Amino acid sequence: MSEILHRLSVDLGERSYPILIGAGLLGSVDLSPWVEGSQVMIVTNETVAPLYLKGAEASFPGKSVSSVILPDGEKYKDWQTLNRVFDALLEERHSRKTTLVALGGGVVGDMTGFAAACYQRGVSFIQIPTTLLSQVDSSVGGKTGINHPLGKNMIGAFHQPSVVLIDTDTLKTLPPREVSAGLAEIIKYGLIREPVFLNWLEANMDRLTRLDTDAVAEAVYRSCACKADVVAQDEKEGGLRAILNLGHTFGHAIETFAGYGHWLHGEAVGTGMIMAADLSVREGMISQSDYQRVVRIVQSAVLPQLPPGNMTPDDFMSLMAVDKKNVDGQLRLVLLRSVGEAEVTADASKEHLAATLSAFCGQQ
Amino acid sequence: MSEILHRLSVDLGERSYPILIGAGLLGSVDLSPWVEGSQVMIVTNETVAPLYLKGAEASFPGKSVSSVILPDGEKYKDWQTLNRVFDALLEERHSRKTTLVALGGGVVGDMTGFAAACYQRGVSFIQIPTTLLSQVDSSVGGKTGINHPLGKNMIGAFHQPSVVLIDTDTLKTLPPREVSAGLAEIIKYGLIREPVFLNWLEANMDRLTRLDTDAVAEAVYRSCACKADVVAQDEKEGGLRAILNLGHTFGHAIETFAGYGHWLHGEAVGTGMIMAADLSVREGMISQSDYQRVVRIVQSAVLPQLPPGNMTPDDFMSLMAVDKKNVDGQLRLVLLRSVGEAEVTADASKEHLAATLSAFCGQQ
Repeated sequence: MSEILHRLSVDLGERSYPILIGAGLLGSVDLSPWVEGSQVMIVTNETVAPLYLKGAEASFPGKSVSSVILPDGEKYKDWQTLNRVFDALLEERHSRKTTLVALGGGVVGDMTGFAAACYQRGVSFIQIPTTLLSQVDSSVGGKTGINHPLGKNMIGAFHQPSVVLIDTDTLKTLPPREVSAGLAEIIKYGLIREPVFLNWLEANMDRLTRLDTDAVAEAVYRSCACKADVVAQDEKEGGLRAILNLGHTFGHAIETFAGYGHWLHGEAVGTGMIMAADLSVREGMISQSDYQRVVRIVQSAVLPQLPPGNMTPDDFMSLMAVDKKNVDGQLRLVLLRSVGEAEVTADASKEHLAATLSAFCGQQ
Repeated sequence: MSEILHRLSVDLGERSYPILIGAGLLGSVDLSPWVEGSQVMIVTNETVAPLYLKGAEASFPGKSVSSVILPDGEKYKDWQTLNRVFDALLEERHSRKTTLVALGGGVVGDMTGFAAACYQRGVSFIQIPTTLLSQVDSSVGGKTGINHPLGKNMIGAFHQPSVVLIDTDTLKTLPPREVSAGLAEIIKYGLIREPVFLNWLEANMDRLTRLDTDAVAEAVYRSCACKADVVAQDEKEGGLRAILNLGHTFGHAIETFAGYGHWLHGEAVGTGMIMAADLSVREGMISQSDYQRVVRIVQSAVLPQLPPGNMTPDDFMSLMAVDKKNVDGQLRLVLLRSVGEAEVTADASKEHLAATLSAFCGQQ
């Protein structure tokens, strides 16, 4: 049970890197060819460490491997916790040839990548994502960062890993809520530019929620391939890449309102995609039955379809005003041109947006 | 009195940028062509703000300009103070098209550059260095960062400015100690690869310490040109660029030992260059009279020639062990092959290093 089922290359010139996908890869694939120096620092959290730290350590034969174990949760995606990684690196005198390894979900991946981007002005890092969300999202694209009390992911860097190892067996220990959260991002790829994949997802959602190995590996591979294709065309989010944020502007507002960690990122994105689809209907871009199709697939992945009951349109407006996509105070949103095609717009009518917000607020 | 005396291009492909050097430029040169969006955030400190903030604000006609004033000093080059820049940017809702402006010395420049590197994963920045040290050092090369209690500049990024404006008139308000600190870095360029410039410095040191306008503009220009040439060949410090660290390994140890801010960076580099020259003699690389020439020019710039009296060889060894130039625990030093030529080596003999350290420690 340690076959590499899919191998994908993220094509970014001299920063290109491979993604290895399969069941049982952790501890059986030798990652030391991707480590330049002799030092390795694995960054993980207290939930993941007891399950997979030993396997990760075994992935670097012949290297000097140490580890730092962070508290688990989005609320720790802050400077204080990041600083524990710097403390460990400096106390153990890691040089600028060291390699950091992110073992865990999106929070660990974003923080470890940002630590690698900043430590001594930049060192290598490797990602071993252990949640479905991080396998299909943060493993491609090099976005790293931490939160600020006034906005999510506001402080960060673009920093590409040297290799990503995705062992789908790690999903077996994942709580069902987190599986659903990962499915939200997978659905997103179908909605923004992969109509054929969306059809496949509608037909196979049942296998995916049951974590059928082949179905999951296929969905992860097709998601990573979709994101890799977008990122290769637009690494620093000058244009196209912004479509990957479908559902994220509404979603980030929900996450910030609820307090980081109360809603999972993928849950907020699921609801956010439904809200974006609703606004797309009001803008005359998709039909009511297209909207229902979006609601159905989000529902089939066992994801929430409404924002927190006490969240008001004003809450949304003020939280969305700090979104990174905005330019010079202009709110930019990702909407659906059709089911399977997204576009970024700063032209959505204020009235339609207000109508969407009041339709979704105070409904729980 | 607002003539651009020298114009230099730092050649880094698509990240190339100009350096404008002259007297009285601040407030008279329009910098808005280098501002992409409508928002500008000037970052400065409480010493510089009363002197030059108005002039800096006047440099961006037609833009929406705000400012954040930090406390003055190397000891504030930390995360807490950096976070005040992020707070201001987020509170005033600066988008990713904003431009940060560093108005001040090296600390302000390094922090503002790092804030620009990290805010929303990277925004533009402009440098207006107001100290001699920052004009000849941090204005070229794109090194940005903050300190960690366990090491100087350990957390940072490479991030290039879009333009650098050097107004030599700002040096008129600089304390003499800071003029000397700047001269240390200027001398360094002569020592590492510009023997002709070193001769010029020996002949003109008196004009420089008196801040003669033409002499200072010439020295700043030749220093920036030297550094620009090195950086263009080796932006990320893979090799050649490391020679710019002559005197810095010993110097950083002194700064850390004394506590950030007690010794000026340039003062520590001045002493560090003498120590590096001493070790170069012991290694058989330069003669005793070469060494004396190094001591003389450092002395003529009114710089200290010995480390703190209570600093021991052991203090040096443990503080130098965390230097960023080290690779896999191997101490790397910049030594002089001749007066006017430096090289990086990991091969200096431990005995010679110990002899240099005991020769310089406990002498005050």
